[in-house]
Amino acid sequence: MKVARFQVDGEISYGVLDAAESGNGIDVVELVADPLVSGYDTTGRRFPLETVRLLAPVIPRSKVVCVGKNYLDHVEEMRGVTGGSDAPPAEPLLFLKPNTSVIGPEDTIVRPAVSDRVEHEGELAIVIGAMAKDVSEEDALKYVFGFTCSNDVTARDIQIKDGQWTRGKGFDTFCPLGPIIETDPDLSDARVVTRVNGEIRQDGRTSQLIHSLPKIVSYASQAFTLLPGDVILTGTPAGVGLLESGDVVEVEIEGIGILRNPVQ
Amino acid sequence: MKVARFQVDGEISYGVLDAAESGNGIDVVELVADPLVSGYDTTGRRFPLETVRLLAPVIPRSKVVCVGKNYLDHVEEMRGVTGGSDAPPAEPLLFLKPNTSVIGPEDTIVRPAVSDRVEHEGELAIVIGAMAKDVSEEDALKYVFGFTCSNDVTARDIQIKDGQWTRGKGFDTFCPLGPIIETDPDLSDARVVTRVNGEIRQDGRTSQLIHSLPKIVSYASQAFTLLPGDVILTGTPAGVGLLESGDVVEVEIEGIGILRNPVQ
Repeated sequence: MKVARFQVDGEISYGVLDAAESGNGIDVVELVADPLVSGYDTTGRRFPLETVRLLAPVIPRSKVVCVGKNYLDHVEEMRGVTGGSDAPPAEPLLFLKPNTSVIGPEDTIVRPAVSDRVEHEGELAIVIGAMAKDVSEEDALKYVFGFTCSNDVTARDIQIKDGQWTRGKGFDTFCPLGPIIETDPDLSDARVVTRVNGEIRQDGRTSQLIHSLPKIVSYASQAFTLLPGDVILTGTPAGVGLLESGDVVEVEIEGIGILRNPVQ
Repeated sequence: MKVARFQVDGEISYGVLDAAESGNGIDVVELVADPLVSGYDTTGRRFPLETVRLLAPVIPRSKVVCVGKNYLDHVEEMRGVTGGSDAPPAEPLLFLKPNTSVIGPEDTIVRPAVSDRVEHEGELAIVIGAMAKDVSEEDALKYVFGFTCSNDVTARDIQIKDGQWTRGKGFDTFCPLGPIIETDPDLSDARVVTRVNGEIRQDGRTSQLIHSLPKIVSYASQAFTLLPGDVILTGTPAGVGLLESGDVVEVEIEGIGILRNPVQ
């Protein structure tokens, strides 16, 4: 199921994507409320996808947890750049982005005046569906609502200068999410590709994750109680690079969709 | 004004402290709603302070921002311990705690099984009252609702091992706040003292802050949009040290009150 949060005629609703009844294109079937808490009852209204504005499919009320250095080729390219050990971490390396950094598809990534080096990091994101504390790897995926595309936008110069990554990765607009949440994708070996102005910059596969999705959820739940709507960014493949004003960056994950954001 | 969030007969309300009408002790005067958003209209009910359970006076919906290394004597004692530069930071060093780490007065700090070295860091906390983005130092205090006591509880071994401080400082129960929010304390030179089992461990004054309160709010607002109810922990003086099971830790700030928490 593909879950969307969308705006039409100034009103914000949740919906699921469905083949249009005309047989042409995709409709958004409106739901009564947020399916994360209220299930899939529909209002009876449906809109052609191209007539609605898709929003970030979830606004975390608590936290966006991120995993650093979770693809070997990215660990290699960051050698000596961002501090700490140069080896792939034995356990997931966690940090947080604030929910004020979240934007949706087609929203603009704003480069802050204090940085000369804003970079893209396309990533698979997990959306938590149920409160999770100290869950095992075996049970971890039961607490997941679905998956979406994300961009762990990073002011690399600030990240390096501060040592702590919070500020360099926490600026407003630095956490694009979307376009939709897929509740049941096949992520055994899904392609995660990031393009800038149509050119491929990062090209990884979920099979290359050093720490698996169940491991990440289980491990994060041992540090923090995870709440419904919390989001976990699972790390980025090699190829991170500069975003400049006027660029358009796309994160595409096989089976989920394309998250596209202009840069200013 | 001293603002409390409290529970009585299973019901959670906001209130302000007032001299009891009897002339003996303190009452909590119940408010219609959260004064952060709704002002100070009262319900007409009042309760003797000792008959209510005080809760964390605010639950941040977005973030707890923390400032590292903001007292010179604490920078000295951390030399070589927690990584990064050993000099006092030229700008406030920011990191985040998740809102799931917040507890209230008398709530128990739980030492996680994965840490052998949980430590106290008593701190003054700022409670944001209005949305703040790119505010100047001159205007910064206009965006502040009030101040409370906080304990930036830290699993020092995890903090050191991870390099990134998020996990070591983000465990559930690692952000005690309270007992109340004072909206207008004199913080020009207020004493900030932390006791463990009645013995003084940290003893600083707000006049020793390397980066001032207006500077901190202004600087944080340049990284993140600050929302009403966001909390900023302003750094800890020297004397951080171990918390063991059965300890009782108190953070007392002159003009605000005493935040007391047992440890398990």
